[in-house]
Amino acid sequence: MSLNNLIYLDNNATTKVDEKVVEAMLPYFSEEYGNPSSIYDLAHTANSAVRRSRETIKEFLGAKDSKEILFTSCGSESANTAIKGVLELNKTKKHIITSKVEHPCVLNLYKELEKHGYKVDYIGVDSSGDLDVQELAKKVGKDTALVSIMYANNETGAIFPVKEIADIVKDINPETKVFVDAVQAAGKIPVNVQETKIDLLGISAHKFHGPKGIGALYVKSGTMIAPLIVGGHQERGKRAGTENVPYIVGMAKAAELAMENLDDELCRVKKLRDTLEEGILSKIKNARLNATAKNRVPNTTNIGFLYIEGELILLHLNDAGICASSGSACTSGSLEPSHVLRAMGVPFTSLHGSIRFSLSRYTTEEDINYTVQTLPHIIEKLARISPFQKELGEILNH
Amino acid sequence: MSLNNLIYLDNNATTKVDEKVVEAMLPYFSEEYGNPSSIYDLAHTANSAVRRSRETIKEFLGAKDSKEILFTSCGSESANTAIKGVLELNKTKKHIITSKVEHPCVLNLYKELEKHGYKVDYIGVDSSGDLDVQELAKKVGKDTALVSIMYANNETGAIFPVKEIADIVKDINPETKVFVDAVQAAGKIPVNVQETKIDLLGISAHKFHGPKGIGALYVKSGTMIAPLIVGGHQERGKRAGTENVPYIVGMAKAAELAMENLDDELCRVKKLRDTLEEGILSKIKNARLNATAKNRVPNTTNIGFLYIEGELILLHLNDAGICASSGSACTSGSLEPSHVLRAMGVPFTSLHGSIRFSLSRYTTEEDINYTVQTLPHIIEKLARISPFQKELGEILNH
Repeated sequence: MSLNNLIYLDNNATTKVDEKVVEAMLPYFSEEYGNPSSIYDLAHTANSAVRRSRETIKEFLGAKDSKEILFTSCGSESANTAIKGVLELNKTKKHIITSKVEHPCVLNLYKELEKHGYKVDYIGVDSSGDLDVQELAKKVGKDTALVSIMYANNETGAIFPVKEIADIVKDINPETKVFVDAVQAAGKIPVNVQETKIDLLGISAHKFHGPKGIGALYVKSGTMIAPLIVGGHQERGKRAGTENVPYIVGMAKAAELAMENLDDELCRVKKLRDTLEEGILSKIKNARLNATAKNRVPNTTNIGFLYIEGELILLHLNDAGICASSGSACTSGSLEPSHVLRAMGVPFTSLHGSIRFSLSRYTTEEDINYTVQTLPHIIEKLARISPFQKELGEILNH
Repeated sequence: MSLNNLIYLDNNATTKVDEKVVEAMLPYFSEEYGNPSSIYDLAHTANSAVRRSRETIKEFLGAKDSKEILFTSCGSESANTAIKGVLELNKTKKHIITSKVEHPCVLNLYKELEKHGYKVDYIGVDSSGDLDVQELAKKVGKDTALVSIMYANNETGAIFPVKEIADIVKDINPETKVFVDAVQAAGKIPVNVQETKIDLLGISAHKFHGPKGIGALYVKSGTMIAPLIVGGHQERGKRAGTENVPYIVGMAKAAELAMENLDDELCRVKKLRDTLEEGILSKIKNARLNATAKNRVPNTTNIGFLYIEGELILLHLNDAGICASSGSACTSGSLEPSHVLRAMGVPFTSLHGSIRFSLSRYTTEEDINYTVQTLPHIIEKLARISPFQKELGEILNH
């Protein structure tokens, strides 16, 4: 495989925008460029495009009404809008429940809220990456304003039982709002909010082959939130700012394609992921599968290499034309080991040498074969310069 | 002029994205799609593009350092970030000064803040649309956390003396922060923050032929703000969310083109605007120029037609293939007359019949000639069905 054919296995960080998405967006830049709020025909075209796109996202998330869909500028804005929006209107309740393995974006927000008088309980996960739902249930009380749990973990791919969690929470306290960060689930597994008691659910287009800079937030009918961006009447007063018509159209197209490709994701992509995982584990003696959660999104695997430095593995993979990562892109460059793997109790011997591979519908069998062939040589080379020679012993299975 | 050739005179609502901007953005969707925070080469390309774009916006606004430029998702987010960000870190000071004619986005935010214990003074304008700077100066006190004044008014085009205002404010209270909403100024007149004492200044790309859904906020070195969207480390911790690489590149290209076209804007576009204004005023007896402010952006004129309903004028203009508006797009559809024109004391007889025409570098002489020819017939037709026959008398000058 030549370097020109980049092997992109970091689709949980961001994805290639589908050419059909670009095509769908193009007319809205220089032709149908009207402001959807204006009253002339040019504006009506833009307005209709936004309306149709809202319908598509409604279907994508299995919402009841397109009025429940709010367009935002990214997953972080969706999460901030949901969390701050709920808390702002429930000022007397100061208790929040979340997990130890949420995306750094959400965790940082909670650290901030703790400084402002909120008590936050962080629910743990077991060594497979599964959430301790029992512990979560015990924490829900009268003062619990919000439970915020991710749908699928960005690092391990572990799927959390959000439907069951919402049922449990509402059983104990029907007033508690449930927010689900579905950024890593949407497009990878079916999402249907209507079948659940979830109040709010956030997604981001660039995780499913839409553009960076557009997201959505499902807000169940009757759930009140204060807007994060106050101003114009757009998004029914819940989010000011001229609508990003091209990206809204693009996200809808990406959602449509994701729905069409869901079977491919659940079968072909999953099979490729399994091939990659098994190939690496069988060829490399010091490789350990970090997450064996009951349910995982089909595209993700996280593998630890004992006594090897993850950043070095990534740099050598980059030289070989393979893109992967050691955790969330938002924390890249920091030397802190992954908070997710630490919460799972991954031993320090493989904590620093853990690599996440995340596939997509663009991933081919050749990509996977090349990676399975290339990686052992990289690990062997790095093992040779490791200070842990004794512990490492023989690296490759022959 | 055929209907296929739309005459777009609503460039203060939004603009056509320049084809060169689209061209500049395209590679970042499906080729250079890396997450700028990742560590492989694909990500570096995206990262460099963001860095270069930040330099361009720095030049566009005349900032000292590209670190002073923060990317946001729109003008509303820029304003919310500036205003809430400053107040959040100055909680003891509860006084704000703004103008009566700010954009509805900013005014709505202040109405919200008033509910939370803030005292807001709204400075008036005279009948020309000029701000009462004397009144503003009198209001600045020890408790003043923020002065927030727009650079140019979206409805009248009146330019406010923001440099002078910042000087006055800082003279009285150096601790008071000055935020300038430059959404309607950037790209139309030269902006140079370095020559001023302005602390924060917001812009939006879609007002200068960039895409909708991207903006920037200048934050002077040393000015502390709390982030609006809390989460990842992006934008130096001041704005979480994966960078919208294509739009950031697009906004930079739009800024570059705006700098190149500034002379055209100040000469050719201004001349066309004056031709339009003079044409309408000389041909239509009941037409009145609403804003005669000392300084106006070169592309805007706001004209009142006595005893005629503005919405009807707009619908007839639309039928003739001309796009214009009666106020800000954000308040379109509301029956409230413009808060800007009311603040100027425009009499009720022309308040409801006021139309804003806003030109751009795409506006041609033919567009203007056609509009000057077409509008009198529309006004005459509407005058005939007006209940104010006696007051109207003869409509056209022949």
